[in-house]
Amino acid sequence: MDTSTRAEQGSARVAWIRSRMALLAATRDEFASSRPFAGHRIGMSLHVEPKTAVLVETLAAGGAEVVGTGNFGSTQDDVVAHLNTLPNVTVFGSRADSLDQHHVNLARVLDARPDMLLDNGGDLAAGLVERDAMDTVIGGTEETTSGGDRLRSELARRIPVPIIVINDSLLKAIGENKHAVGQSAVESFMRITNVMIPGRRFVVFGYGWVGRGVAQSLRALNGKVAVVEVDELKAFEATLDGFRVGTADDFAEWGDAFITATGRPNVLCYDLIERMRDGAILGNVGHFPWEIDVPAIRAHQTGSTELVSALERVDLPNGRSIVLLAGGRMYNLAGSEPKGNSIESMDLGFLLQALSLERVATGAATLQPGAQPVPDDIDRLIARRMMATLQASS
Amino acid sequence: MDTSTRAEQGSARVAWIRSRMALLAATRDEFASSRPFAGHRIGMSLHVEPKTAVLVETLAAGGAEVVGTGNFGSTQDDVVAHLNTLPNVTVFGSRADSLDQHHVNLARVLDARPDMLLDNGGDLAAGLVERDAMDTVIGGTEETTSGGDRLRSELARRIPVPIIVINDSLLKAIGENKHAVGQSAVESFMRITNVMIPGRRFVVFGYGWVGRGVAQSLRALNGKVAVVEVDELKAFEATLDGFRVGTADDFAEWGDAFITATGRPNVLCYDLIERMRDGAILGNVGHFPWEIDVPAIRAHQTGSTELVSALERVDLPNGRSIVLLAGGRMYNLAGSEPKGNSIESMDLGFLLQALSLERVATGAATLQPGAQPVPDDIDRLIARRMMATLQASS
Amino acid sequence: MDTSTRAEQGSARVAWIRSRMALLAATRDEFASSRPFAGHRIGMSLHVEPKTAVLVETLAAGGAEVVGTGNFGSTQDDVVAHLNTLPNVTVFGSRADSLDQHHVNLARVLDARPDMLLDNGGDLAAGLVERDAMDTVIGGTEETTSGGDRLRSELARRIPVPIIVINDSLLKAIGENKHAVGQSAVESFMRITNVMIPGRRFVVFGYGWVGRGVAQSLRALNGKVAVVEVDELKAFEATLDGFRVGTADDFAEWGDAFITATGRPNVLCYDLIERMRDGAILGNVGHFPWEIDVPAIRAHQTGSTELVSALERVDLPNGRSIVLLAGGRMYNLAGSEPKGNSIESMDLGFLLQALSLERVATGAATLQPGAQPVPDDIDRLIARRMMATLQASS
Amino acid sequence: MDTSTRAEQGSARVAWIRSRMALLAATRDEFASSRPFAGHRIGMSLHVEPKTAVLVETLAAGGAEVVGTGNFGSTQDDVVAHLNTLPNVTVFGSRADSLDQHHVNLARVLDARPDMLLDNGGDLAAGLVERDAMDTVIGGTEETTSGGDRLRSELARRIPVPIIVINDSLLKAIGENKHAVGQSAVESFMRITNVMIPGRRFVVFGYGWVGRGVAQSLRALNGKVAVVEVDELKAFEATLDGFRVGTADDFAEWGDAFITATGRPNVLCYDLIERMRDGAILGNVGHFPWEIDVPAIRAHQTGSTELVSALERVDLPNGRSIVLLAGGRMYNLAGSEPKGNSIESMDLGFLLQALSLERVATGAATLQPGAQPVPDDIDRLIARRMMATLQASS
Repeated sequence: MDTSTRAEQGSARVAWIRSRMALLAATRDEFASSRPFAGHRIGMSLHVEPKTAVLVETLAAGGAEVVGTGNFGSTQDDVVAHLNTLPNVTVFGSRADSLDQHHVNLARVLDARPDMLLDNGGDLAAGLVERDAMDTVIGGTEETTSGGDRLRSELARRIPVPIIVINDSLLKAIGENKHAVGQSAVESFMRITNVMIPGRRFVVFGYGWVGRGVAQSLRALNGKVAVVEVDELKAFEATLDGFRVGTADDFAEWGDAFITATGRPNVLCYDLIERMRDGAILGNVGHFPWEIDVPAIRAHQTGSTELVSALERVDLPNGRSIVLLAGGRMYNLAGSEPKGNSIESMDLGFLLQALSLERVATGAATLQPGAQPVPDDIDRLIARRMMATLQASS
Repeated sequence: MDTSTRAEQGSARVAWIRSRMALLAATRDEFASSRPFAGHRIGMSLHVEPKTAVLVETLAAGGAEVVGTGNFGSTQDDVVAHLNTLPNVTVFGSRADSLDQHHVNLARVLDARPDMLLDNGGDLAAGLVERDAMDTVIGGTEETTSGGDRLRSELARRIPVPIIVINDSLLKAIGENKHAVGQSAVESFMRITNVMIPGRRFVVFGYGWVGRGVAQSLRALNGKVAVVEVDELKAFEATLDGFRVGTADDFAEWGDAFITATGRPNVLCYDLIERMRDGAILGNVGHFPWEIDVPAIRAHQTGSTELVSALERVDLPNGRSIVLLAGGRMYNLAGSEPKGNSIESMDLGFLLQALSLERVATGAATLQPGAQPVPDDIDRLIARRMMATLQASS
Repeated sequence: MDTSTRAEQGSARVAWIRSRMALLAATRDEFASSRPFAGHRIGMSLHVEPKTAVLVETLAAGGAEVVGTGNFGSTQDDVVAHLNTLPNVTVFGSRADSLDQHHVNLARVLDARPDMLLDNGGDLAAGLVERDAMDTVIGGTEETTSGGDRLRSELARRIPVPIIVINDSLLKAIGENKHAVGQSAVESFMRITNVMIPGRRFVVFGYGWVGRGVAQSLRALNGKVAVVEVDELKAFEATLDGFRVGTADDFAEWGDAFITATGRPNVLCYDLIERMRDGAILGNVGHFPWEIDVPAIRAHQTGSTELVSALERVDLPNGRSIVLLAGGRMYNLAGSEPKGNSIESMDLGFLLQALSLERVATGAATLQPGAQPVPDDIDRLIARRMMATLQASS
Repeated sequence: MDTSTRAEQGSARVAWIRSRMALLAATRDEFASSRPFAGHRIGMSLHVEPKTAVLVETLAAGGAEVVGTGNFGSTQDDVVAHLNTLPNVTVFGSRADSLDQHHVNLARVLDARPDMLLDNGGDLAAGLVERDAMDTVIGGTEETTSGGDRLRSELARRIPVPIIVINDSLLKAIGENKHAVGQSAVESFMRITNVMIPGRRFVVFGYGWVGRGVAQSLRALNGKVAVVEVDELKAFEATLDGFRVGTADDFAEWGDAFITATGRPNVLCYDLIERMRDGAILGNVGHFPWEIDVPAIRAHQTGSTELVSALERVDLPNGRSIVLLAGGRMYNLAGSEPKGNSIESMDLGFLLQALSLERVATGAATLQPGAQPVPDDIDRLIARRMMATLQASS
């Protein structure tokens, strides 16, 4: 496929998304008139998919020049092609890039001398610190909690400008982590496996925002759900919410499917996996691909077959098989037609990005240096706008 | 792709399905020893997808020769290729067949002189009646309610042998129509549209088995749901189940999405569609593609674009657009990765087929001539087996 | 308390009920103008509580003379006093009546030579048959299913006039048996025991209309619920509705509380009770007080104390105690402030009575002799009215 | 009734409660051996009902002398009589006491020279401050949030000893405010009004811990629920939880019933009340009796009748009537048979009291002076114990 064909394909896919991102559409109109980013160049490192394109278009409408690259391994090439047809937008990288090439892409973004950052995992900030050039930017945003942690630990005291950590927003926790990931975890489970939910036994690990969304969605569709949670207060809440709550040991032989959402490594360790019933399904929706101990599975497995996209049967020495989704990575972003979180939840998340970047551009004086949460007034403004969009009272 | 490659692909897809169809697997073992179909040739007309293949394998294991064809327009070619590699199985047809070719395929099935029927929509029975050859078969099964209606009306008194109508089974109503279609309607809506369920307004037409499954699943995921149902007693039940219940007029301007499951034509007539808000989404999960008045839409539309697979934006003369799923056909069987009903629900439905055919083969004397429901003891046997498979008490 | 004080108290209690029975209020106005019962004397045998009074008032407004008595042991004396202040109404009996006196009351009703019956359990019909005077009535209604069974078995062929069996109505099953009894079973459990629902383990016996209402209500409030149901198809439905489903044996040691709604005797037999954990709570909401084997409990118990109204601790020889609600009678009608089913559900049930009696009075020619269900048009009329009252679409 | 008869009655009522308070029972045994309060005199000001008695018994078992009094207007005299039969326990006051007498009772508690406080609303602490005798105590607990606020504002810097504020506990928020008050609000609504929940329209004010418990419980029983919440983030959460969310204006004419749980005054102001439909029901479950503007109702009403216990019809000048529950006080503690929160939730709340008092008695050195939350380890210990009691994993 040549680049222009690819760009057309990307453009078509973006069209549907754009038509449903009502919050960004309104902000795009505002930005087109207020031009908060006029004269600014934003360096971007962010997962590139159709929704991302709508954010970039919104920033560009506000006068920004955007120079960016995607995450390692998940870049959607048609969206890159589409973005590179836009004025004042340059995006490097492709899905097939090696890790080395990904680092080259990040360097090229920094080489373009952005004065604002739209960062992910702290990669751009770390690069600037390494170049001792942090003072060339007036501030920026960081998408992830883990990037926020990095800014507050290894990079602490080396960040003289404000970086707003998007994922710390309570609004985002409600709108995305609880409801959107819950929805996508259930949708993707059904899409990939085609297995019946009613009457099936699910064990959900973690009862944080994501875990409770998953547990409640599965139960709402008449699945039987047990919860494993090490924090006593969350475990108690799950108990009074009507779930069976116990240790992984309690449910290892009970579950038909096991879904992890804890943020911690090796939650499904090999010892547990060995005790599971034949055909047990294992999936992870936590950010890191370490909750299921896949290296241990690989070390023991006697065979492995991908049966359908993102679904693999793994044979164990004990004569049983397990079914592993997406190799232990977030299965709600996997499969032959991954959709990820709902459009509206990303509209909300990216409006947090857009308005936080606007605050950095126009009101940096009101911000502290270093990593910090989204200003409360932005959270509340977006909550009001989303409720208006949803016509919440009707 | 050549035939053997295609057969391999079909075989791989069937493998996952087969591994989860526990009921048919057990029956296959029983049939392999009891051989109820030894000496019988079963003429089949049935939607051909991987789950169907497991039914055919089960019948073949019981000694049957199977000669069949798929439904018009939905045949999966790799599954046909796979089936034709099996001994004693012959399947005609491909997805690309014209309607004329489909009728040729049906005729070829009858030409093979089956003595039992596995029918769908009454096509094979009608063909035999036309050939005045109904007495060449000892009986059979009919998959659909509409086929059953046909056997009881236009074909009544011309059917001297027992035909068991599978879809009349209460067990199937519970296991498939209510729970499985409800699940797939919600899963497919999310998969195709990527739209958020929580806080969105859905209008569900019909509160029969299918409609209530859809309404309850959407509400369970925190959608707001209104129900339109003309039968007063079902409408009353929906009211006490906590839904808003009214006429289509009441909700035409309220809904974000409209889902039909009534079995009746033109439920979403153009008059209503014209009043809907910009961006309203229309989908049908009823068997017939007539619930949304697509011809009227086509007659009025000023433009139409397929934005993503199975999702089309249609521009109306009033300046608004609607979003039409799967052109008004069952959208839960559409899109780039359609899964249809859950494996377990089809396992149940096909075991009804297998055991009903066994009854015809071995116990026809206990049956009446003509269309009739699944014998009660078969319903109850399968209920017990499915509960054992699910370990219902754990 | 003298009779007039008692009547005032009854009148006050009826006032609240009357103000919320919107359906009967509208019908009362219609009857006052159409006078369908002018010249008729209705013999009544029905549980006498404030809601009943509103039915009697409605019939009297339609021109009826009403002569009646209550059920054995449940008559509310202040309501009797109130009713006897009304013109053309005579009610016999009091709560303290012996069974012999109750039979005297029934005889007095028949002595008054009613020409229509408002019967309960078939007592009045059986009395007329015994007197060989069934031809003195033009027909009537029967409240209960068990009364209907009696009319169709022991009294069959002795009933030359139409008797409409109210409880056979599908409308009533939905409005009263499922939703209202479910609500009252949960409300009364909390009211009598003050025990927490969330996280507690309930075993519900029976998944008919009543049982599923109870099971779903308890689960909705975050109780953990297992279902015991001997009918395979209902058990299967409970399974796919997401409940644990098994035998009484499976859950005898698991449950914190056991609630029966099967209609069958000795569902909770002593053998099971002996295996329950210390402090297990036993309650019945089925019509007959025989689902819990109270005689066997009494035969074995080593002690018994009423701790609060309708709640008794029973000590067993094994050293454990159980908690018995309302002595095994319907606990949702017991306790120090019993409310029974919701006002609206009784409004619906009594409108079925009123309109069925009107049909007997004015359209008996359209009815068959003997026991029969509520005419379909009456069910549908009431469904429409109740939805209008509830403003179902808002 | 003489005092000993009254004491026997109180003793019987306490027996049922005590038998279900498993957490306090275990702690009572521990205290009987560890005697943490030996030599201490605890001054108590707390609502006196059967559950309170079990707390007092537990403290006494730990070696405490308890001298106390109840809240104004809610003291249950039989429980007082029962408590005064116990060694080392003295309780003053009765339900009929005037406010002046209540202040005398508080003074008598302080006159007894307690060295620890079990306070409510800060009354005892304020009394000690006034006497300039705060240094005569080593610390204590405060039950309410409003008492905690008082300690932190008007009494701040006058509290040289640790006072643990029980209601600040997250554990209590989950176990009592969300689940127990939600349950009791629904149970009491049904108990007092006997009105049907399914299909009825409820407007819940406030989506804090209590409000969301109420809203979710009503919806779970098939009520239609709209939420009014001024905090944007909570309102947004309610929206994505699937509720209609808007202003009081949006729902004034829509609701059948209005329930307040905001903690703020005049939420249901007269202006709104005047717009409500005839027969609208108004109830409050917030701590303060000011959420419904009862003074304004009284100023305008043209008539008022108590129809049943805790339920009053109020006639308005506009010709409509409203139904007011419990005169605007917490209706879940009102009516002829009030139960209040579930036994288990109070078991949890009072164990927080008991272990916090133990910490003051034995580990005061680890505490700060002044008002402070329950130590985290106590919250977690109780969470673990409650889950063990509930056998959470089964």
